Parts: sequence; C-alpha cells; structure tokens
Amino acid sequence: VQLINGRPDDAPLATDRGLYYGDGLFETIAVENGIPRFWIRHINRLEQGCRRLGIVCPDPGLLRSESDEVLAAARSAVLKILVTRGAAGRRGYGAEEGGEPTRIVQRLSWPPYPAAHQQTGVAVRVCSMRLGTNPVLAGIKHLNRLEQVLARREWDDGRISEGLVMDRKERLVEGTMSNVFLVANGALLTPDLQGCGVAGIMRSAVMDLAAASGIDCHVCAVDQDMLARADEVFLTNSLIGIWPVYRVDSCGYDIGPVTRALQKRLASGDGEGTGWYSR
Amino acid sequence: VQLINGRPDDAPLATDRGLYYGDGLFETIAVENGIPRFWIRHINRLEQGCRRLGIVCPDPGLLRSESDEVLAAARSAVLKILVTRGAAGRRGYGAEEGGEPTRIVQRLSWPPYPAAHQQTGVAVRVCSMRLGTNPVLAGIKHLNRLEQVLARREWDDGRISEGLVMDRKERLVEGTMSNVFLVANGALLTPDLQGCGVAGIMRSAVMDLAAASGIDCHVCAVDQDMLARADEVFLTNSLIGIWPVYRVDSCGYDIGPVTRALQKRLASGDGEGTGWYSR
Repeated sequence: VQLINGRPDDAPLATDRGLYYGDGLFETIAVENGIPRFWIRHINRLEQGCRRLGIVCPDPGLLRSESDEVLAAARSAVLKILVTRGAAGRRGYGAEEGGEPTRIVQRLSWPPYPAAHQQTGVAVRVCSMRLGTNPVLAGIKHLNRLEQVLARREWDDGRISEGLVMDRKERLVEGTMSNVFLVANGALLTPDLQGCGVAGIMRSAVMDLAAASGIDCHVCAVDQDMLARADEVFLTNSLIGIWPVYRVDSCGYDIGPVTRALQKRLASGDGEGTGWYSR
Repeated sequence: VQLINGRPDDAPLATDRGLYYGDGLFETIAVENGIPRFWIRHINRLEQGCRRLGIVCPDPGLLRSESDEVLAAARSAVLKILVTRGAAGRRGYGAEEGGEPTRIVQRLSWPPYPAAHQQTGVAVRVCSMRLGTNPVLAGIKHLNRLEQVLARREWDDGRISEGLVMDRKERLVEGTMSNVFLVANGALLTPDLQGCGVAGIMRSAVMDLAAASGIDCHVCAVDQDMLARADEVFLTNSLIGIWPVYRVDSCGYDIGPVTRALQKRLASGDGEGTGWYSR
C-alpha cells in the first residue's frame, strides 16, 4: 500500500532495491549516427560491476535488442541502462534468494553541453567536498552517487563546466561527471581509482588511444601540485568525449598538442577497437 | 522512451533522482497499536537530512495525513517514507531549478525478526568491509546504502543476526541496520558518527532514556579493544528496539542489568517524549 506524491500507485520501482539502497549499476552511452558508441566496453563494465556487487547481469544480447527497440531510428541520443538487484523483500539490506534483477533501458535526449567546449575548452574548479574511500565500490558505476550530487551543488556559475574532486588524502580523483588527465613532459597522467572514483569508458578509450599513439600514460596518485604544474589538462566522459581545460580555479592552461592529437584520433573513430557496435 | 524488464513503461520513478543517484532520504517507522512510534523524531531527522542535501522537505502535516491514509486500520506495520530530489532533468548530477521533490509513503509488513531476540539476545559478527568516511553524508539516513548491502552480504548463517562495521581507522561505527552500544563500568558508550554511520532514532531515544535513568552515556571513538572489554553490548533500531548481544564472533557477553533496565523503560513507553504521535 503506497502513495507517490499523494496518489495511490502500485509502481514496483517504489519498492525496488535500486531506489531503496542504490543497489545497482548504470551505463550512460552516447548514440551517434544511430550507433551506441563503445557498446562492448560499456557492457563489459556493467558485467564487472554486477560481479562486484553479486548481481546477476542481464544477458548482453537482450540488453542490445532492448536498446535497439528504444532507440528506434534515433540518430543522436543518450542510451541509459540501469540494472538493480531487484525488488526489496522483507529482509532489509539482505537480499531475498533467487531474486530477479531489474533492468531499465532508456532513450534520453542529449544534455545541453555547448558544442564549442571541445574546441575552446572549459574552466573548472576544485570542489571542497572530499570523496570517501571504499575499494569495494571504487571503479564501478554504481547507483550511490550522492557525493557527485553534493560536489555538483557547490557552484552555480554557468561559466564553470565541471568540478574536480579530491579524496581525503588530498589526492585528485576525478571530475563530478568525468575523468581527468594531465599532460606532463609529453606523457599522460591520470589518477588511480583504487579507493574511489568511476573508471570511465572514455578514460579507458583514451588510454588505449594514447598507447596506440606512442604516448605514455601513467596511472598514479595525483596531487594538487602535479595538477598545478601540468602542461595540459583535459576531461573525458562518454558524452563529452575530450574537453580541454583552460583554467582550474585561478590557474590557466594552454590547450596543447597532446590533447588535440587525442581528440583527433577519437573523432576519427579510432579507439572504438573492440568497442565498436557492429551491425 | 523506456523498457522496464522488457516492457514499455512510463513509470516516472525510472527517471527519478532517487533511483539514478540515491539522491534522497528515508525513514523506517515502527507502527505499534496503530501508532507510528517516535514520529516527531523521525520527521525531525528527515527534515535535517533534507537540509543537509538541499532538498525541500515535504510538509510534515502532509506526510502525517498520507501516513494515516496508507496505515488505515493497521495495528502493527512498518511505515516507510522516502523523499527524493525529484525527477532527473538534462543536467546530470546538477538539479533543475525549481524541481519538486518526490515523496513516497508506504505501508510494509513487519520483517520476520524472531520475537525472542529481545529476551535471549543475538550473536553478531564483525564485518570485513570498512565504511568510507564523508562527514557531509554522516548521520543522515540517505539512499546511498550500498555499503550496508555489501556488509550484509558477507554472511549467510541464519544464527548471525547482525554484522558490526568499522571505518578505515578500525573504529567501530554501527551495525549494518542498527546502532551499537557498549556498557563499561555502568556507563554507556556509543560510537560518534562524525565520519560515517546513521544516527538512529532508537539510538537517540536510548540516549535520552539513559539520561533520564541516571546512566552516563559517552559518544566517542570506540575501537575493537573497547568492544572486547565491554560488560554488555546491545543493538538498537526503530523496529528491533533493543537487542542484547550475547556473542561477537568468538567473544561472549552476559546480558546485563543496564541493557535490561533500558529495555524495560523502552517497553513502558518512556522515551517517546516529544516523539509520541498524539492523536
């Protein structure tokens, strides 16, 4: 028996463990020219997250056919897939045995990011909120995203396009919705995500593009000094691709040759590799 | 456009920020003899959580009338209230301005806890997962509960009724679904929740009962040594009341006079104080 915003409603999602506990995972996939980009990478990460949380991952073929169905003839869209552990039972945090996961496949419209950001770059800030550390949750794209919501609430200045977040050891981890790369001495640096952060699909694609381009990439602890001394800084996610950063708080950066080279390779369709959604 | 488990469905909750991000709060309220216990305390905590997250809290009078409606003539039940930031827009983690929160009021059946636990006590274990620390999220009952889900998945032995969880400094914080108290030299000790943990309603009620009984209660850092040396240990939450603990892993405890005295005062209806739902 339940009321949702005052109205009687038997919506099963209102008692789903996804809503109750954030007990699930999601993927946000760019659809360009009707094709979900990096499909296989997204599905691999979803499967990895399901393994970590002990959720039975829906069949990838089923997810693909349902994605095709919601996409219909859409050329440009965002495909969002959510998988939760399923309906809550009477055991609280403990899951019922034999419970069926819930899968949700959605076609969403493209967020209103200015197209010029890829060319002219973005200004970002460093958030004051520090991420908590839990290796069990690090890397996967789970549904517990309050830290990102709260970090995003720290600014309301439309000229700031993203916030960088640090952990409690003052190490740079990621952006609220993106991963971050530095260029130093011609090599890439990006934070390791052992303790917190999301291992983005575009992050892994950029690392592969760098390797294919002969650019070293070091995954390591990154502190604010390293950020301040970087030659170039850029952000990645599946929807924005690569955004050059021209300013972090009061510190300016040039948009340099490494960022531009990686953007060019990405735009050419390189890096999909095993991720290309062939059909 | 979306499919939920393969079926077309326009369920608004499937694009709610509660599901997308766990961007909300909940209360789980014991209904006994038709009365939601500690109503005012629950509503106060909900309002406090909404302030912390920057969510507009629904009117308490509205929540009360909707609770009455779903409870109808139920004598014994669980009342669950969820409040989320509302529908997701196109701004990702950033919330739309002027968005309306979503409120869900549910009547659930009582969980299958053995009634004897209050008398005979329970055996518990110490979980291996460590809680992440984030003061911004500590204390409030938000919807990001994956840590509790994962801690609860560590055991499947029906003789173990709860798991205690520590933070990354090896300090005791709480149980997966409960708060924990130690008795040492006649005084109560309970972990401070500055970095993580949920400040339970029954925890605060027990602290008030202790004060009214002349029992000192220290809110402080609690480590595993203090746990091992405690004279008594008990757990609290809104549904279980007070569960004495007779064993933590291989360490046995007597169910002692302080635990029994607090159980007796709680059963007598003391401690509701301002929390009594008068009607």
